[in-house]
Amino acid sequence: MQIIPTPSPVDPKPGQLLARGVSRHLLQHNFACLEEFVPARGLRVDVMALGAKGEIWIVECKSSRADYQSDSKWENYLPYCERFFWAVSEDFPTDLLPEDSGLIIADAYEAEIIRMPSPQAMAAARRKMLTRDFARTAALRLQGLRDPRI
Amino acid sequence: MQIIPTPSPVDPKPGQLLARGVSRHLLQHNFACLEEFVPARGLRVDVMALGAKGEIWIVECKSSRADYQSDSKWENYLPYCERFFWAVSEDFPTDLLPEDSGLIIADAYEAEIIRMPSPQAMAAARRKMLTRDFARTAALRLQGLRDPRI
Repeated sequence: MQIIPTPSPVDPKPGQLLARGVSRHLLQHNFACLEEFVPARGLRVDVMALGAKGEIWIVECKSSRADYQSDSKWENYLPYCERFFWAVSEDFPTDLLPEDSGLIIADAYEAEIIRMPSPQAMAAARRKMLTRDFARTAALRLQGLRDPRI
Repeated sequence: MQIIPTPSPVDPKPGQLLARGVSRHLLQHNFACLEEFVPARGLRVDVMALGAKGEIWIVECKSSRADYQSDSKWENYLPYCERFFWAVSEDFPTDLLPEDSGLIIADAYEAEIIRMPSPQAMAAARRKMLTRDFARTAALRLQGLRDPRI
């Protein structure tokens, strides 16, 4: 498993600020979020969220039209979640976004779910693998922050 | 789910120092560790470790004979793991410990597995629940450290 270190809070990029607001908001829906998670080799999602019943959501954060239009990978993320959302800032041209994706309007401090997508089925084996990798990634990052000597 | 905040690194108790050494060592076995995890209401384990294949281990850290002898709950932890270990310091009277439990000798900085217990079977539903709760607890603690305003 590839572990990406905890993203630095110093000089966050615009997308990382959106991710923070998204994570704060999803906590109110009782989802635990992990940023910059790697569900499979070559893929990295901005926010992976795990619900109290094991639901898995993915949120891709786009700070601008150019940021969105340069993303050629997002359809590869769909098999790794039950619901897929775009999170964009208030001034983003949301007409560009696929209508069957979820939509979240966010800033660095908070967010709101505007459109809830229909859930897709996920294979049990994939859910099990993702939940395990999410667990290990979160615990290893936490250990890295708490015990910097490792 | 009950979330215990990330244990404070300020003035750690002797058992928490052992837990740090244990967590460092288990990382070498490719286990991700979470301290003070609640597998079920009323239970709190010192170290819960999740392996790359989803293996679940529990380590109880005992800093002294009195600390061990006052623990009346440990047998309740057995159904929540495949392998159960005691972690004690070098001068602990290990003859006191049950022979079918695992044994780890630890200090605040490192540890070594002295006796590997036989694995016990775990029900798939319980493993799934524990892995999910481990994942959510770790991610929420990580978010709490990274975004203290939540």
